[in-house]
Amino acid sequence: MTGTIAAVREQVAQARDRGQVPVGLVPTMGYFHEGHLSLMRKAREECGFVVVSIYVNPIQFDPAEDLKTYPSDFDRDLKLASAEGADLVFHPSDKEMYPEGFDTHVEPGSVAEGLCGQARPGHFRGVATIVAKLFNIVGPDRAYFGQKDAQQAAVIRRMAADLDFSIDIRVCPTVREDDGLAMSSRNTFLVDEERAQAPLLYQALTAARDALARGETNASKLRRIMRRTIGQNYLVELEYARIVDPVTMEPVARVDREVLAAVAARIGRARLIDNLLISPEE
Amino acid sequence: MTGTIAAVREQVAQARDRGQVPVGLVPTMGYFHEGHLSLMRKAREECGFVVVSIYVNPIQFDPAEDLKTYPSDFDRDLKLASAEGADLVFHPSDKEMYPEGFDTHVEPGSVAEGLCGQARPGHFRGVATIVAKLFNIVGPDRAYFGQKDAQQAAVIRRMAADLDFSIDIRVCPTVREDDGLAMSSRNTFLVDEERAQAPLLYQALTAARDALARGETNASKLRRIMRRTIGQNYLVELEYARIVDPVTMEPVARVDREVLAAVAARIGRARLIDNLLISPEE
Repeated sequence: MTGTIAAVREQVAQARDRGQVPVGLVPTMGYFHEGHLSLMRKAREECGFVVVSIYVNPIQFDPAEDLKTYPSDFDRDLKLASAEGADLVFHPSDKEMYPEGFDTHVEPGSVAEGLCGQARPGHFRGVATIVAKLFNIVGPDRAYFGQKDAQQAAVIRRMAADLDFSIDIRVCPTVREDDGLAMSSRNTFLVDEERAQAPLLYQALTAARDALARGETNASKLRRIMRRTIGQNYLVELEYARIVDPVTMEPVARVDREVLAAVAARIGRARLIDNLLISPEE
Repeated sequence: MTGTIAAVREQVAQARDRGQVPVGLVPTMGYFHEGHLSLMRKAREECGFVVVSIYVNPIQFDPAEDLKTYPSDFDRDLKLASAEGADLVFHPSDKEMYPEGFDTHVEPGSVAEGLCGQARPGHFRGVATIVAKLFNIVGPDRAYFGQKDAQQAAVIRRMAADLDFSIDIRVCPTVREDDGLAMSSRNTFLVDEERAQAPLLYQALTAARDALARGETNASKLRRIMRRTIGQNYLVELEYARIVDPVTMEPVARVDREVLAAVAARIGRARLIDNLLISPEE
């Protein structure tokens, strides 16, 4: 474990010298669940040296958001990462990542505008900036992200291509609870009755998938099906239910290829998101 | 010479394998003068492998600016770079650098706001973006820039620090004609009577330096001295004459340390800039 950029560079350079390649990076905000662990396992399978970063990046949170209450349990995270075979955990301070005078940002374009970008202005700029920094600090050959954050993955793919990072962006499947709820550190915010309603998000997505399988290719109708599935539930405040292109995140009118069905909702103190890649062939 | 990113990556990797390190990058827009050549010479002195990029970056030009008339002479440039011992010249097309869908930018902060940033909105965003791309394409250990573009150098230093590029940013002295005019590819735009007036920019800077040496530390007075030196000249339209901090580019009121005296002016079709680091000790 280290908190300094210099130590990360040194240890990655030494690993490369020892032939422990490719180097894999799993960037996280900690408070690990099976989703995070699945990324580490994939990285461990594919890489000679695995770096896991744990850093709750303040610049991707709005002042009104849950930065201060974002859950953490560093000791547990460290044990879990070690059990998954991570070679190095990077856990920097805010001062290490954003020293005085910091003033340059990576600004994603239209891929960051819709969906969560609308509700969370500046969020993806914060994400793109910290990921660019981590890419430059670690210099990985591969980096692992979860499909649960589909728009984040699209922003990072776009950024990696546009800024010529020579890094293979691996996006791994969403890990779900038995009842379908996508794993998220924010699920911890849910009280029992809220938790009981939370699988509605995934049910909305599967309802859209099933309707598409039955031949419904009109995106407006699929969106209506998602909204209706969530329904007038006093615990679940739907923020959006959209059908978009999986690469550009642009709205799609008719589903003639693989698309992303995506939902976001507030349940109690949590803002939860989920998505499903669906295609007419299914 | 190559125009492809893939070939640059391959040739730099091969050079590293052969132990030709450090790798140096000299990013240019071509139409070489002694200023460019001095950067190549410095890189050749200090590096095992020298990459010179020649690319007139469209996104750092405003639609109203001189992108279309920016001078070029690629064959001559290639010969000159080769004579200076460059190992690789990278001369990409716009399509190679900005393929369809390109949509991510590097956005510098307050260091890019004053001086040229005021007259050229978006200019330094374009500069920061192309330099970040070149850094990721070439992966140099050192990169060479001219002090003539002092604000550009400050923007790049800030970006390299903020985004954790592990690259030593070397800023080399401005090269001048015998009469003091800073070398610039844009000097070619000057007709004879304009060229005769152009040294006024440097004269304004040396007048400020001399006044400071005589004890004048009031920045407003130094600015007045620069403006007065350029005077009411119908060929020279002064854009700014400022005294700023050399790192932040923020205006300085009293000169109690090294500062940057900076001027910009339009002369005929050319917009010319110049600057001088001056300090009370001189």
